[in-house]
Amino acid sequence: MAVGLTPPKAADILPVAGIRLGVASARIKPQNSQPDVTLIALVAGTKIAAVYTQNAFCAAPVQLAKQHQQKATTRYLLINSGNANAGTGTAGIVAAVDCCAAVAALSGDDVTSILPFSTGVIGAQLPVDNIVQALPSAYQNLSETGWYAAAQAIMTTDTVIKLASQQVLLSDTTVTLTGMTKGSGMIRPDMATMLAYIATDALISQPALDDLQQQAMAQSFNQITVDGDTSTNDACVLMATGQAKNTEITTLNCADGKILLTAMMALSKQLAQSIVRDGEGATKFIEINVNTGRTSAECRHVADMIAHSPLVKTALFASDPNWGRILAAVGRSGLADFDLSKVTIHLGNVCIIQGGEPAEEYTEAQGQAVMDKDEITITVQLERGTASSTVWTCDLSYDYVKINAEYRS
Amino acid sequence: MAVGLTPPKAADILPVAGIRLGVASARIKPQNSQPDVTLIALVAGTKIAAVYTQNAFCAAPVQLAKQHQQKATTRYLLINSGNANAGTGTAGIVAAVDCCAAVAALSGDDVTSILPFSTGVIGAQLPVDNIVQALPSAYQNLSETGWYAAAQAIMTTDTVIKLASQQVLLSDTTVTLTGMTKGSGMIRPDMATMLAYIATDALISQPALDDLQQQAMAQSFNQITVDGDTSTNDACVLMATGQAKNTEITTLNCADGKILLTAMMALSKQLAQSIVRDGEGATKFIEINVNTGRTSAECRHVADMIAHSPLVKTALFASDPNWGRILAAVGRSGLADFDLSKVTIHLGNVCIIQGGEPAEEYTEAQGQAVMDKDEITITVQLERGTASSTVWTCDLSYDYVKINAEYRS
Repeated sequence: MAVGLTPPKAADILPVAGIRLGVASARIKPQNSQPDVTLIALVAGTKIAAVYTQNAFCAAPVQLAKQHQQKATTRYLLINSGNANAGTGTAGIVAAVDCCAAVAALSGDDVTSILPFSTGVIGAQLPVDNIVQALPSAYQNLSETGWYAAAQAIMTTDTVIKLASQQVLLSDTTVTLTGMTKGSGMIRPDMATMLAYIATDALISQPALDDLQQQAMAQSFNQITVDGDTSTNDACVLMATGQAKNTEITTLNCADGKILLTAMMALSKQLAQSIVRDGEGATKFIEINVNTGRTSAECRHVADMIAHSPLVKTALFASDPNWGRILAAVGRSGLADFDLSKVTIHLGNVCIIQGGEPAEEYTEAQGQAVMDKDEITITVQLERGTASSTVWTCDLSYDYVKINAEYRS
Repeated sequence: MAVGLTPPKAADILPVAGIRLGVASARIKPQNSQPDVTLIALVAGTKIAAVYTQNAFCAAPVQLAKQHQQKATTRYLLINSGNANAGTGTAGIVAAVDCCAAVAALSGDDVTSILPFSTGVIGAQLPVDNIVQALPSAYQNLSETGWYAAAQAIMTTDTVIKLASQQVLLSDTTVTLTGMTKGSGMIRPDMATMLAYIATDALISQPALDDLQQQAMAQSFNQITVDGDTSTNDACVLMATGQAKNTEITTLNCADGKILLTAMMALSKQLAQSIVRDGEGATKFIEINVNTGRTSAECRHVADMIAHSPLVKTALFASDPNWGRILAAVGRSGLADFDLSKVTIHLGNVCIIQGGEPAEEYTEAQGQAVMDKDEITITVQLERGTASSTVWTCDLSYDYVKINAEYRS
């Protein structure tokens, strides 16, 4: 059902010097022997920037990863799918520590240099023994060409693997960016059941890397929403190995910094959109632009009102140009001093609402032609300022209900 | 599909002295000859209290009804189903005025003494001629026994008619309360596609009537949500004819005032819950109680987070005791200084979360037994104050998507 999303060709995925990936099967879902454990090895000198879910109910691996990241230089990322190790109490923390310790024993590093990540069902204890037994196999097959297998191993309800590569020429050398992500439900701006790992061989200072991540996230993963639910396990990790040996980028406000930022934004946007395109039950990819608001926050609020309205989402599923539901969603956004009679709304390039009322020249056939497409843009002009915001989302279909009603059974 | 909701017996619906209702068919939906126009006549001396949608995109009849109510004593309510007269611009206002004028011509009253209400599809022009032609028939069959026919005529996607009666003994006489409501989607606290008309023959002062409405609403219609969408047309009208000739109630802080308030709250709660029980596609009726919060607003916010989570709602549909989704919804509520490790959650009378972790004695079989029921209570204790809030909602099923994807086609 993924909208406009095809798996990348393996040949298009470029290794990143200094990043090795290995997978193994721990049979976390007993009936499934597909790889579900992924190990990512970071060459010495790799810098990372990571953001985690803001949900107060955050999973054991998230709690532990945050601590480990503060205590030591990260050398390995350990990811399992099939079990989120969330809502598992103290036992869940112990389980995550045990898994990290098993990696540390293999590599001879300190346990704090391992960051754990889990995704999958909430509330079941992690099968630590299975994971520990699978780890030597994952460790042995660590390889710079392991991206494709890893992107498959981290999937849960995803129907298409999500990874992408880019190369860009800096002033003195070519650098590579490769990233993978997973997630198709419980997706929301502040990170979701989403996991994302993006690596580059560029040499960049820690402050510039942090800035790079912040800016790239703001315009990619933080602009997507499938169902408004935020997960307990979201994490996004940016890794820079420095192996390209370019002149170190110490600020994004230089020529090389801008090139890297542009490439990172494009890659992040592609990966983030791939989550929405593979949204649970999605049949349409929707871009919502809200312009001419007082602040970007209020524009975002209006965009979210539209993106999270079940009535708008089911109309999109039905290819029904039911602009009344869009206008009602805007109307209930509760902005101060809001004058609906100034609002203009376009569906694609068709003006449906002008000055708060149906556009005179609008015909149902025009609206239908836009709605019949797989990819639809909704643009709202508030006409009360200069700020704007964009959100990407999908429709609400029978299959969303089916997937989420049956996920545990 | 309505959960625990059967149509009332016609014999159980009591007339209210001074309130006459008449219906007619205006064929607003051309293929449907069921009555879709309702006229309610209020005897001279009847006082009313009305609240309307807070959506900035409010329908033409809502705009007009507010104006008329301020200008004159209300003598008639005119309600049509099948067309919301919303998003219809200036033409929609003119259409609503024309309909009111037609009633005024029949009764000899001023046009401002008529309040118009519409419910149904947004964005189509009201077929004024059809309604005007149907009005004489509705006017002729005005009768104090017209409640049942009227409750049927105001329905749209409702599957069960929603009306109820009560009688209570005041200090010197018996008074009657009868009310009807409609709405099953686009339901949300601040009023929704909901219309509600409740009448009593009690004699009550205007300030006491306003107070009565405010208190009864707060604990009934303002506590329900089906899908978080607020409608353009919501209205709730309370009418008091005074025909019971009881000693006038001038405050709710007297014996008779308390009796009337208790009865009005019970009736409003029954009607409000009937909307959720008939929620679009509903298979479960859910009560969410959030207790021991700092303010009732924060308790309500947490309750709404749970009630609006598509993941929680689909788990409820699947009868899946997926407590992780409930905890995740609580976790993403974003309360200041929130300590999840103090949270306790009960599903029915089964403790599922204690101190932020799965309760030690909890078993999946216990959770399953609660989830298998049609009516489920979720209770969250935040343990940071003394405030509380309750919300009633329903699950999210295939049929919700089906109904809302197909409503216009």
